[in-house]
Amino acid sequence: MDDAAPQKPDPDDIDVTPITPTARVQSPTHGGRAKCLQRLVRLDLPVPRTVALSFRTVHRIAAGRLPDIDALLAEFNPGALLCVRPSSEDPDWGGPGAVLNVGMNAAVLERLSAQIGVDAAHRLYLRFVQGYAIHVARLDPDVFEEIDAETPVTGLRTALAAYEEEAEEPFPDSPAVQLAAVLRSMARAWEGTSARLLRQGKGAPADAGLGLVVQEMALGLGPGECGSGVLQLVNPQTGLPQITGRYLSQSQGRDALRQGAGSLYLERDPRGPSLEELAPAAFAELLRHADLMRRRLRAEMQIEFTIENGRLHILDGIVVPMTSRAAVRTAVRLAEDGIITREEAILRVEPRALSELLHRQVAPDARRDTIGRGVAASPGAATGRIVFTAADAQALAARDEPCILVRRETSPEDVRGMHAAVAVLTEKGGMTSHAAVIGRGLGLPCVVGAGRMRFHPRRRMLVSEDGRTFQEGDAITVDGTSGTVLAGAPPMVEAMLDDSFRTLMSWADAARDIDIRANADTPADAQTARNFDAGGIGLCRTEHMFFEPGRLTVMREMIFAETAADRRAALEQLLPMQRDDFVQLFRIMTGLPVCIRLFDPPLHEFLPTDRAGLRDLAEALSLPVSDVTRRVENMGEYNPMLGMRGVRLGVTVPEIYDMQARAIFEATLEASRDGAPVVPEVMIPLVSTPREVEIVKTRIDAVAAAVRVEHGRDFTYRLGVMVETPRACLLADRIAQHAHFLSFGTNDLTQMTYGLSRDDAGRFMSDYVSQHVFDEDPFHVLDTEGVGALLKIGLARGREGRPGITASICGEHGGNPESIAFCRAAGFDYVSCSPFRVPVARLAAAQLAIRHRTEHA
Amino acid sequence: MDDAAPQKPDPDDIDVTPITPTARVQSPTHGGRAKCLQRLVRLDLPVPRTVALSFRTVHRIAAGRLPDIDALLAEFNPGALLCVRPSSEDPDWGGPGAVLNVGMNAAVLERLSAQIGVDAAHRLYLRFVQGYAIHVARLDPDVFEEIDAETPVTGLRTALAAYEEEAEEPFPDSPAVQLAAVLRSMARAWEGTSARLLRQGKGAPADAGLGLVVQEMALGLGPGECGSGVLQLVNPQTGLPQITGRYLSQSQGRDALRQGAGSLYLERDPRGPSLEELAPAAFAELLRHADLMRRRLRAEMQIEFTIENGRLHILDGIVVPMTSRAAVRTAVRLAEDGIITREEAILRVEPRALSELLHRQVAPDARRDTIGRGVAASPGAATGRIVFTAADAQALAARDEPCILVRRETSPEDVRGMHAAVAVLTEKGGMTSHAAVIGRGLGLPCVVGAGRMRFHPRRRMLVSEDGRTFQEGDAITVDGTSGTVLAGAPPMVEAMLDDSFRTLMSWADAARDIDIRANADTPADAQTARNFDAGGIGLCRTEHMFFEPGRLTVMREMIFAETAADRRAALEQLLPMQRDDFVQLFRIMTGLPVCIRLFDPPLHEFLPTDRAGLRDLAEALSLPVSDVTRRVENMGEYNPMLGMRGVRLGVTVPEIYDMQARAIFEATLEASRDGAPVVPEVMIPLVSTPREVEIVKTRIDAVAAAVRVEHGRDFTYRLGVMVETPRACLLADRIAQHAHFLSFGTNDLTQMTYGLSRDDAGRFMSDYVSQHVFDEDPFHVLDTEGVGALLKIGLARGREGRPGITASICGEHGGNPESIAFCRAAGFDYVSCSPFRVPVARLAAAQLAIRHRTEHA
Repeated sequence: MDDAAPQKPDPDDIDVTPITPTARVQSPTHGGRAKCLQRLVRLDLPVPRTVALSFRTVHRIAAGRLPDIDALLAEFNPGALLCVRPSSEDPDWGGPGAVLNVGMNAAVLERLSAQIGVDAAHRLYLRFVQGYAIHVARLDPDVFEEIDAETPVTGLRTALAAYEEEAEEPFPDSPAVQLAAVLRSMARAWEGTSARLLRQGKGAPADAGLGLVVQEMALGLGPGECGSGVLQLVNPQTGLPQITGRYLSQSQGRDALRQGAGSLYLERDPRGPSLEELAPAAFAELLRHADLMRRRLRAEMQIEFTIENGRLHILDGIVVPMTSRAAVRTAVRLAEDGIITREEAILRVEPRALSELLHRQVAPDARRDTIGRGVAASPGAATGRIVFTAADAQALAARDEPCILVRRETSPEDVRGMHAAVAVLTEKGGMTSHAAVIGRGLGLPCVVGAGRMRFHPRRRMLVSEDGRTFQEGDAITVDGTSGTVLAGAPPMVEAMLDDSFRTLMSWADAARDIDIRANADTPADAQTARNFDAGGIGLCRTEHMFFEPGRLTVMREMIFAETAADRRAALEQLLPMQRDDFVQLFRIMTGLPVCIRLFDPPLHEFLPTDRAGLRDLAEALSLPVSDVTRRVENMGEYNPMLGMRGVRLGVTVPEIYDMQARAIFEATLEASRDGAPVVPEVMIPLVSTPREVEIVKTRIDAVAAAVRVEHGRDFTYRLGVMVETPRACLLADRIAQHAHFLSFGTNDLTQMTYGLSRDDAGRFMSDYVSQHVFDEDPFHVLDTEGVGALLKIGLARGREGRPGITASICGEHGGNPESIAFCRAAGFDYVSCSPFRVPVARLAAAQLAIRHRTEHA
Repeated sequence: MDDAAPQKPDPDDIDVTPITPTARVQSPTHGGRAKCLQRLVRLDLPVPRTVALSFRTVHRIAAGRLPDIDALLAEFNPGALLCVRPSSEDPDWGGPGAVLNVGMNAAVLERLSAQIGVDAAHRLYLRFVQGYAIHVARLDPDVFEEIDAETPVTGLRTALAAYEEEAEEPFPDSPAVQLAAVLRSMARAWEGTSARLLRQGKGAPADAGLGLVVQEMALGLGPGECGSGVLQLVNPQTGLPQITGRYLSQSQGRDALRQGAGSLYLERDPRGPSLEELAPAAFAELLRHADLMRRRLRAEMQIEFTIENGRLHILDGIVVPMTSRAAVRTAVRLAEDGIITREEAILRVEPRALSELLHRQVAPDARRDTIGRGVAASPGAATGRIVFTAADAQALAARDEPCILVRRETSPEDVRGMHAAVAVLTEKGGMTSHAAVIGRGLGLPCVVGAGRMRFHPRRRMLVSEDGRTFQEGDAITVDGTSGTVLAGAPPMVEAMLDDSFRTLMSWADAARDIDIRANADTPADAQTARNFDAGGIGLCRTEHMFFEPGRLTVMREMIFAETAADRRAALEQLLPMQRDDFVQLFRIMTGLPVCIRLFDPPLHEFLPTDRAGLRDLAEALSLPVSDVTRRVENMGEYNPMLGMRGVRLGVTVPEIYDMQARAIFEATLEASRDGAPVVPEVMIPLVSTPREVEIVKTRIDAVAAAVRVEHGRDFTYRLGVMVETPRACLLADRIAQHAHFLSFGTNDLTQMTYGLSRDDAGRFMSDYVSQHVFDEDPFHVLDTEGVGALLKIGLARGREGRPGITASICGEHGGNPESIAFCRAAGFDYVSCSPFRVPVARLAAAQLAIRHRTEHA
């Protein structure tokens, strides 16, 4: 408080605007609260006299240039108490707390003592001194907080003395000095570093401004019915219509919401007394105002009101903060009530928030005994017993006991265990680790990279971050939404796909202009995709199918076959199983396209690496262990990601693709028997040169011809290329000439474009993101600059090579709203994402289309 | 011989052109031989009457449409014998053998018997029947080859009878029938599949044509001095001027060159009789003709001549086939004699052939006892004792015993052993394996991927392809030029960098317009680069410097350091050693730029993987083995190529680059003390985003500032980026803003563009190339379509971001003539390649510049 004297105002900079129906008050210059208050004034609601200070003005105040305080005071009734509240552009960005009762001094105290009673007046003054000392003069809070408000007269004396002692000057008496100090303090708090970081974390731009609103107080204390309260017409948890809120006689601000304050219900209520009973006229007027605000402000509003001697004042209104499911229901209800359009309803729901609806969650008010933290890799929560192996997970699942699979990291061999578990927890990995990808695909809650817990799989033990030991069989909860691990079984909230959700999604589908498919490998995935109205399967990986027991052994025989004939014999055994896989998929997806990626991973992924496994394999193949070990070692690769996999296997060991093509085509005939004809899409992975496509295409066409002849029936199929090497993007024109479609695999493409293995990136990715070397983890958010540049090149060249060719994105990025924006703008036909991301993607796509139409209208 | 009757000619297709000075005969339509004969005719040399058949005509003949044979015969003296010889566009592409004495029959036999004697005439006829039966009628060779030519009269009778027996028709008497059959047979032989594959292997296009030349025979048999011979004015081994060749009286064709035929020398010679003595006038005339041909055909020519009754005929001339060193000397001599220009001399030498000159070779005439075959990974040959470990190689080298390092494959730990060995042989790997790359860098003969030999390093044994066992200590020879392994020590030819070589290279340097630098990691490399007149060092990899004994231990301490301070302490010890490395390099390269790449490989490459190594390390660090093992395992990566290396280490463990920068700058000051100021270039590897460059640049600038202050002296340096990820190419505009130069690392860029690890590609690369999936191994020949497209994007964007920025290519492709062509056309400033490739690159660059100027003149 170096200098409280008001300085000369500069009319160019200083914008102090009384809020009237015609004043120039806008969100981007004065903040949301100021704008909302103006709308209330326009609706002719009983809003106390209010003045708005613009962002620019507040910024000048922080720099030491105050507006003309006397002029500002002159806007209000002489001797009135004032309150000052923040008004940022987006209310979510926060801001300094409101300061009430500015203008209090001995003279006002005397007047108010007469008006509302000595104790009430002293309590107001004491409250003002406390708030001012702590938040404005920034004195030691301990000194002021302990002063007893129950004896306000001595309390006030103590407070004023303590202020003088601590601040080394008397408590200011002049309302102008008080107001100037309050404005300066709030302005400076906004510009402080921690406040800036906090709001930037919530998405505020670096130069986000703060407006201030100075309002004449309606006291809420005094003779007659006086008090304050908060009201809204909706339940913020459910979104159902319900008058909620509280009212407290002889109170100010949001006191009514304080626990144990003895507040009243608003509407008549069997649980206790209500405002409706206490002051039926004010209540009725309040409801009228609330309904008017809902209709005219076109949102569910939370209203702050005060009753002064029976007279209602509306102090403020904000949009009700609510859960995602309430937000969905509210948006739909507002549209159904004709208050907003369907398109607006679509824009009102944050796509990412939908995830919350699609999964069980830990109840928001549950006590959380957090034992570990990691990456929130797949949303939802589940409780189960700890198991450390996939086999144990299957054993427990067989007894219907929910279990949590706890692994250092997962590999394809764990997939069946993941199917059996209710959630997965791993020590290593990031958003795109195996566990995370499969977890999201299965809709399985998953926390990965919980490296600060200690994993002792051999000792069947897990140690929490704070050193507690959990044994196999102990119950824990994995909260994949927040990325935490909890001890025990906290209460849960079930997933809820209610009618509002379905209604909103149907509106979204009508609005969007890019197709959404799902990545689905199993019948369960496909069923999820179908339930979520995916437009088809954009990526069906076939390799997991070979890990099932029974198949794995045959697979290994195939790998160890010495001749093409032996290899074919082994594959012959796999053929009927593959065919059944595809028949199931085609039946579930009937009428929709299913894009099957041919076998992709390196063969050595199917071989054991530990001694026991090698011994078993040697027995199964009747070979010496040393021989098996040597051959397994010989198949090892330095960089398996860049090795003998994908189409390279297809070209050098063509029998595998032959078998798969036959399985697909025979399944096509089988599934077409009962219903609509199936048109399978067959996709070749890891292509880097057009010739690979030619070679594989020739063989697959030959298989198709053979199947047609053998079965005497015709069918159609589409052959496409998974574009996932930079070279395939660069040569997409020539590749497209052999392909019906191009599907860009952004996972591998990102790895190759960066020269960065996603399995190894975990070591430094968090460092890199926190140091802003990378703006985001490119495996999580599509890198539109680098990978995006290649995608655009690939798309342009592909369309050059074959005009109108179907082009899409598959991979982990597909469901991401930013990625969808990129793909839509670039001109892709569809994106494909995890089944559980499909609703998010549908909504995001709809929002993009609507915004695009709005901008171009 | 289904139908020997000549068909009606079609004047549009058939081109039968008597060779006269004004006839329209060209290499691309009639072949090189026809064209050369026309030039001899123009020089007015005594060439017998000759007719040329064009490619198109011969192609029609193969399809069954003959020219008018009677008209063709009418071009020659009635009853003359003819010879038919092939005339392809490039003589190297081969073709069917010549057929002599066509037209021989009973009537001619009678006339010739009178003219040249009965025996001689019968011998001619017999020879014709034999050749015709085997090569034209394609009868069983055994039947005809065993007929004794020493009794030609009975021999002829036997041959004619055998012909009638085998062919089931009499030997044709009509010259027209004979000639038609000969033409058809030669035309069809050219179009056969095996002949086509053979010539395509030599670089012929798929549609290469064959011309034929029909010439009236000068008999070489008969009264007076008759005979034939071959002459050239140069020694084909050395390129020195020397009349070489042979003459044989009473002979035809190239009979004089047959071993033991009793041929004469040409020039007077102490070793025996000569043509000069026998027929001095003919000899003198021959020399005049030869000299004229050399001057007017502007090449060293091999002349085929016949003397008929003392009269000289010139039958044919071809460019002398010679060794590379002879080719260099010849080109320089022709230019120095004013016969060709210097630019033509440059164009006459095949750049790749220079390798032969730069290395010792197995003598061309040595007996070769081949025991294994592999990839010719680094040219030259060396003999030494087998050793199986790098340590043994160093031990033998210390006793000055040449040794061959034999390994399954090599790794960075073997580099010192490779320095000690005279050659390297490995079981695994291809052109771009570690052994191959290091071998070429060191100029060390190297055969890799000799997988058909069996390697038993633990039993210290090597088994040849044919099952012979070689023990440690046995002498073998590695011929890295041919990719073979020989038993014992065959005679060698020394490397020869003679004056001709230096002269040619100086002309090349004057002609070229792109700079050539060398990749050099050690003082020895740098000295080689300097000797070969490299324009500087384009890539100095620093990691090998840490493998030296003493350093490796400190390096491991650094890796295991728990804190940045401990890490700095370990690096402190490495600093003076690194500084000395750089001082040496700077002194050798004084006045030339040296581009140093900062530390690149993953740290785990410096850790042991076997038990003994882990135990030693645990001892050295006073840690439990289990602890060391766990930490080593934890550092392992799934895809090290795409992992924690390059600038990623520089950003997350910045102390390493700090130390290296300090070593470079202190060495700069040290080396500048005695001579010209050194301007080091510092290069950051594996960049994928501009921010990485900014971060490293900030720290390096700080180190430079500190060194300047500490030493009180100033220096300059240039900071650049190794562009080796696709993303760096795509973002080169923004990266260039922080860089003085961009050097494109095509090795890693190729790996990432294809999504293909060069260490793993060996498994299928040969399949891929032989099936034409890839036209070439992209690690060997720059992929101009895919990788090249990225290079062009990177260069264009880089120059956009910083106009005029220095841009170059480093990596294995740099020395490749095709790559240089690409880089020159694209506008790169220089290429950098292995030191031993520098002369090849200089010559290739000169040829490109000359051809470019010619085309644009």
